Amino acid sequence: MTTTQLTAQIIKKKSFLCIGLDVDLEKIPNHLLELEDPIFEFNRILIDATHDLCVAYKPNTAFYEAYGIKGWQSLQKTIDYINTNYPEIFTIADAKRGDIGNTSTMYAKAFFEDLNFDSVTVAPYMGKDSVEPFLAFENKHTIILALTSNEGAFDFQTKTVEGKELYQTVIETSKTWKNAHNLMYVVGATKAAYFAEIRKIIPNSFLLVPGIGAQGGSLEDVCKYGLNENIGLLINSSRAIIYASKEKDFAQKARAEALTIQRAMETILKKLN
Amino acid sequence: MTTTQLTAQIIKKKSFLCIGLDVDLEKIPNHLLELEDPIFEFNRILIDATHDLCVAYKPNTAFYEAYGIKGWQSLQKTIDYINTNYPEIFTIADAKRGDIGNTSTMYAKAFFEDLNFDSVTVAPYMGKDSVEPFLAFENKHTIILALTSNEGAFDFQTKTVEGKELYQTVIETSKTWKNAHNLMYVVGATKAAYFAEIRKIIPNSFLLVPGIGAQGGSLEDVCKYGLNENIGLLINSSRAIIYASKEKDFAQKARAEALTIQRAMETILKKLN
Repeated sequence: MTTTQLTAQIIKKKSFLCIGLDVDLEKIPNHLLELEDPIFEFNRILIDATHDLCVAYKPNTAFYEAYGIKGWQSLQKTIDYINTNYPEIFTIADAKRGDIGNTSTMYAKAFFEDLNFDSVTVAPYMGKDSVEPFLAFENKHTIILALTSNEGAFDFQTKTVEGKELYQTVIETSKTWKNAHNLMYVVGATKAAYFAEIRKIIPNSFLLVPGIGAQGGSLEDVCKYGLNENIGLLINSSRAIIYASKEKDFAQKARAEALTIQRAMETILKKLN
Repeated sequence: MTTTQLTAQIIKKKSFLCIGLDVDLEKIPNHLLELEDPIFEFNRILIDATHDLCVAYKPNTAFYEAYGIKGWQSLQKTIDYINTNYPEIFTIADAKRGDIGNTSTMYAKAFFEDLNFDSVTVAPYMGKDSVEPFLAFENKHTIILALTSNEGAFDFQTKTVEGKELYQTVIETSKTWKNAHNLMYVVGATKAAYFAEIRKIIPNSFLLVPGIGAQGGSLEDVCKYGLNENIGLLINSSRAIIYASKEKDFAQKARAEALTIQRAMETILKKLN
């Protein structure tokens, strides 16, 4: 999928919501646990209930790997289900991978070819040759961790490196890499004040924004500084939506939560015109 | 496994060699491709042929994920085979994971509980709360990327942060975290000159050292500056050993390569006494 197609989908759906599919068997409704693949069934029902309100789904691979081979099968079925039934949806493997060149190529194959995700999140610590193998895939997107939504972001990401903060150096350096037009960045909603600075460096890139909801970030603040003329934002919400209820009504409750966010986004988008 | 047990094993085997199991189907002997699980069979034969010459095996997860569910099954069978047949071996999941706290806990469960590895490599970019969930597991070890063996290491890791290089800040900061005695660090052999500086900060920690062989690092240089009184080094070699031959003699050739390194290590260890 191209970013032009992504923006078109956002405008059509009046939503730039991404739903994080971080499935923890201890948190899903009990009645699903009797099924053969509870994780996939949970995802399938959630996706059917919310696909018209969001433009992206983002399974975090940790939640699948924790269940071993069965978890990996659930991930495969989930991405296949989205690609088959809702091909307009942008899919993000939140995997935070990154390794030396030939090894990153294997990760890129895993997520772009074997699983057929549109994008994957990547950690920047190992530098250019750890990221470029992902960028080599046409119409696939590499989402680099810039400024994350957790407390630990202040341990290294905001440290001053040659007069700038490390996350700024990461963005400035990476935007010069080969096929950087396929780059997006993770910027946490909990750090809304930073968006203005970031938009000076990368006015046109899409930003994937975690931290709304459970982690306390504000949608309005992020949009104020983060929106660009192609919208340029994917706002992620995971727990607040998918665990809105632990009962049989979980899909309706999830839809209600997603609808609240979509309507807030619609209001914000209207003001842009 | 404790580090005391690891050191005891090193002294007994006169080796601090770690063999990287980075299995690429395009590089393994053709006759194995007819088998049901060529990746596992390749590993099993290699492990049987080299286990007395090394103290650790390190599968890089990228090479398994690239083959999807089948690859994940091969990884599971490989770690089970090592744990069952050679329980004295230290096992490293070279996964370079790291995410916000609750998500890192899922990764820790995946590698320490579900797969039962002794250790996992972790990327430091997201800071303390992304690493501490791994450190919470007793007698398991977290190996933080400090200074990697690739060219991209110079993009960020060696940048000056408040008067020190970033990799030094990563080591100094992380060694204050909870259960830091379970921490080890990745330091590339291609940067032997840095080992003296690193040993000033962490005299006692084990260092996992990639970059010998295919990547050009020197065993003697690394040992000169990196050895400590508990040995404190795990020197990894992957391609030079496992792809020593693409013919039916691949296991013998791999053993011969491993033996050459083990003998060089034995000579170095003798000089210590």
